[in-house]
Amino acid sequence: MALIKTPVKGMQDFLPADMRLREHVLSAIKTTYATYGFSLMETPAMEHIENLTSKQGGDNEKLIFKVLKRGADLAHALDKLPDAELADSGLRYDLTVPLARYYAANSGQLPAPFKALQIGSVWRADKPQKGRFRQFTQCDIDILGDKSNLAEITLLEATAQMLSALLGEVDIRDFTIRVNDRRILMGAALASGFAADEVPGVLISLDKADKIGWDGVADELKANGFAADVVDPYVALFADSEGVGVDEFCAPLVGSALDEAVVTNLSQIVATVTPLLPAGAKLVFDPTLVRGMGYYTGPIFEVGLDGYGFSVAGGGRYDEMIGKFSGQDTPACGFSIGFERIITIMKDQLGAAGAAVAEGSVAILVAAGVDATQKAQAFARAAELRAAGKTVTVVPLRKNLGRQIAELEAQGYQEFEKVRPQRG
Amino acid sequence: MALIKTPVKGMQDFLPADMRLREHVLSAIKTTYATYGFSLMETPAMEHIENLTSKQGGDNEKLIFKVLKRGADLAHALDKLPDAELADSGLRYDLTVPLARYYAANSGQLPAPFKALQIGSVWRADKPQKGRFRQFTQCDIDILGDKSNLAEITLLEATAQMLSALLGEVDIRDFTIRVNDRRILMGAALASGFAADEVPGVLISLDKADKIGWDGVADELKANGFAADVVDPYVALFADSEGVGVDEFCAPLVGSALDEAVVTNLSQIVATVTPLLPAGAKLVFDPTLVRGMGYYTGPIFEVGLDGYGFSVAGGGRYDEMIGKFSGQDTPACGFSIGFERIITIMKDQLGAAGAAVAEGSVAILVAAGVDATQKAQAFARAAELRAAGKTVTVVPLRKNLGRQIAELEAQGYQEFEKVRPQRG
Repeated sequence: MALIKTPVKGMQDFLPADMRLREHVLSAIKTTYATYGFSLMETPAMEHIENLTSKQGGDNEKLIFKVLKRGADLAHALDKLPDAELADSGLRYDLTVPLARYYAANSGQLPAPFKALQIGSVWRADKPQKGRFRQFTQCDIDILGDKSNLAEITLLEATAQMLSALLGEVDIRDFTIRVNDRRILMGAALASGFAADEVPGVLISLDKADKIGWDGVADELKANGFAADVVDPYVALFADSEGVGVDEFCAPLVGSALDEAVVTNLSQIVATVTPLLPAGAKLVFDPTLVRGMGYYTGPIFEVGLDGYGFSVAGGGRYDEMIGKFSGQDTPACGFSIGFERIITIMKDQLGAAGAAVAEGSVAILVAAGVDATQKAQAFARAAELRAAGKTVTVVPLRKNLGRQIAELEAQGYQEFEKVRPQRG
Repeated sequence: MALIKTPVKGMQDFLPADMRLREHVLSAIKTTYATYGFSLMETPAMEHIENLTSKQGGDNEKLIFKVLKRGADLAHALDKLPDAELADSGLRYDLTVPLARYYAANSGQLPAPFKALQIGSVWRADKPQKGRFRQFTQCDIDILGDKSNLAEITLLEATAQMLSALLGEVDIRDFTIRVNDRRILMGAALASGFAADEVPGVLISLDKADKIGWDGVADELKANGFAADVVDPYVALFADSEGVGVDEFCAPLVGSALDEAVVTNLSQIVATVTPLLPAGAKLVFDPTLVRGMGYYTGPIFEVGLDGYGFSVAGGGRYDEMIGKFSGQDTPACGFSIGFERIITIMKDQLGAAGAAVAEGSVAILVAAGVDATQKAQAFARAAELRAAGKTVTVVPLRKNLGRQIAELEAQGYQEFEKVRPQRG
């Protein structure tokens, strides 16, 4: 009869102080994007297996938690249903596939452009390890139906403001947004002599420069069979690129390998967003920024905290994906916020996760044996304090009052009132 | 390649205007209970199958969505794993079983008493029908570890305040909280001559009085084999009970069939909560209130809106359930709020679900072909308006401006500024 006490493998219970931090971060995200005209939307946790395995999810498609078709008994299901029909849905592993389905289903009722904010759990049957869970929160902001760079500019500005407001609370203000364009990556590779179908593989090597250095990238490309007279000038393009401007880097590529409009577009994004950034935030062109997902078609971006070795947000333009699903051409641009990472950073900086209740909260401790009148007075007093804006809990006074007060203080209560039976 | 556009059977997409209402209701619930010292907590969506099938979930245990053990391919899983191990977890069908597991796992880190607020999705593989979905939001508030009636008083007061604040927004202020005690129901049956093990069946008949009338209840009990000299006086106890006080109703039962402390306790709850109620709310003793779940052990309560035929919240004391799971005796008292029902009522009253953006929002419409300087000015203007507290969206100006403005107005935008290319 006893329960298994631990959560399901790789999943988490959130304690009250954790929840208070999570709610605070959620609220800051919602509030900031709302002022930019983003609307919350929500899809169910479960999606059709066909949608989840449409090859847009990459390796995540191997990590789907499949859901048995019916609530019916498993043995019954195994007897009666062919294997393929046993599980016809699964838990979503990201918020992008559901967004595509949602837009296809509801676009007639959605504004154009549609500025969407999604915050929700996703599930991955991954090997659990420190900081990697099988259920975690994702936070995606997307603009669907805007092919202009108003979308990129809005996403970059809003995200910078949100991060600055939130991380500023723990005195982290310096972060760098790196931007690039998939078409510039393609142009640089083509101009160096790679063939178009070789570029995805080349970018995988380029993306390792941080870890293996430029010589390492060159060696890897050569080991993969590319000629030195293609590899060396290609790597040289990037090895000296720190601090280079968009126009300067792209000038030699414009023409057959790169459309000038791509350069103008990215330059305009950089020029427009820069003056809109909060103090401490920088926007830089980084021609070495790759970002893994193959679905990006234009500008891409990634936000890193200065002095930390990881990103807290990333995204880009993916004009072809929604249309592939919906059959209707739909330009799209999005940012994914590293919600769990932001929580971890803030929790680390705050020492613990902080108090569970608001500052100045009051506990009224009522001893056993008080009469009905006193009890009524205690609740009336609590109501009066609440009307004055306080959080008030009314709880039984325990025998060990010192320990009880210490526990209440640990929750964040700061004022205490005791009600004891009146002596006749 | 095309997606299946509809959500998984029985599940819902929420549009921006729906989300705005849902977020508003969530926020009102969180805010009210927070001022009473309730803390948010959260458990994973998935629970161990053993926990979900522990017989505390009643009929819901037949509706479990089982999750395949691994993200691995289904055929692979079917080959390699015995049936019973294929699915060792499932989606939670309520928030009570997870609460019991959570408390058993984390009680060392939780305050005593623990005042918990849980809001989350639950899943049931039920036959979908109007207003019944396979994924929906539940909202439970519970006090664990308080055996005194401070728990009942707090839950009743806080819930009345929350309902009044929320439903007051749509001019619904009149509602009635009915209270009873499981032990009074038991006492009345025993005093009439039923045996203790017959009482659960007797209560099923009693609970139908609303639908079949008191004669109907008497007929059903007799049809079930009970003697008229037991049934008739039993039914008479209730048939005349409207408006009766706790003491008056219970006086004939006190003694062998009912402990006087039960009566004193419920009387004190009624007396203490009544003056704390908001205008329009009533608290009445209703000896015919049964509430279905067998796990209640003491006071039970249900809130109905006057003039509507359904309840919007219900709960009671269940002192034995948590302990059965955790092995540690834990008094518990809780309220479950009909979140989806409240949403439905408010949506009906509001006509539609209201606007997607805040009042006074501004749309800046930027025509194609504006230069970089004008674009920068448009975003600077937007930032200025945001600093003044406005919601501002910057979107491409479309060819059919009249239609675009109409669409933006439907979203809730009220002010419009246009940026067009300057003529040389």
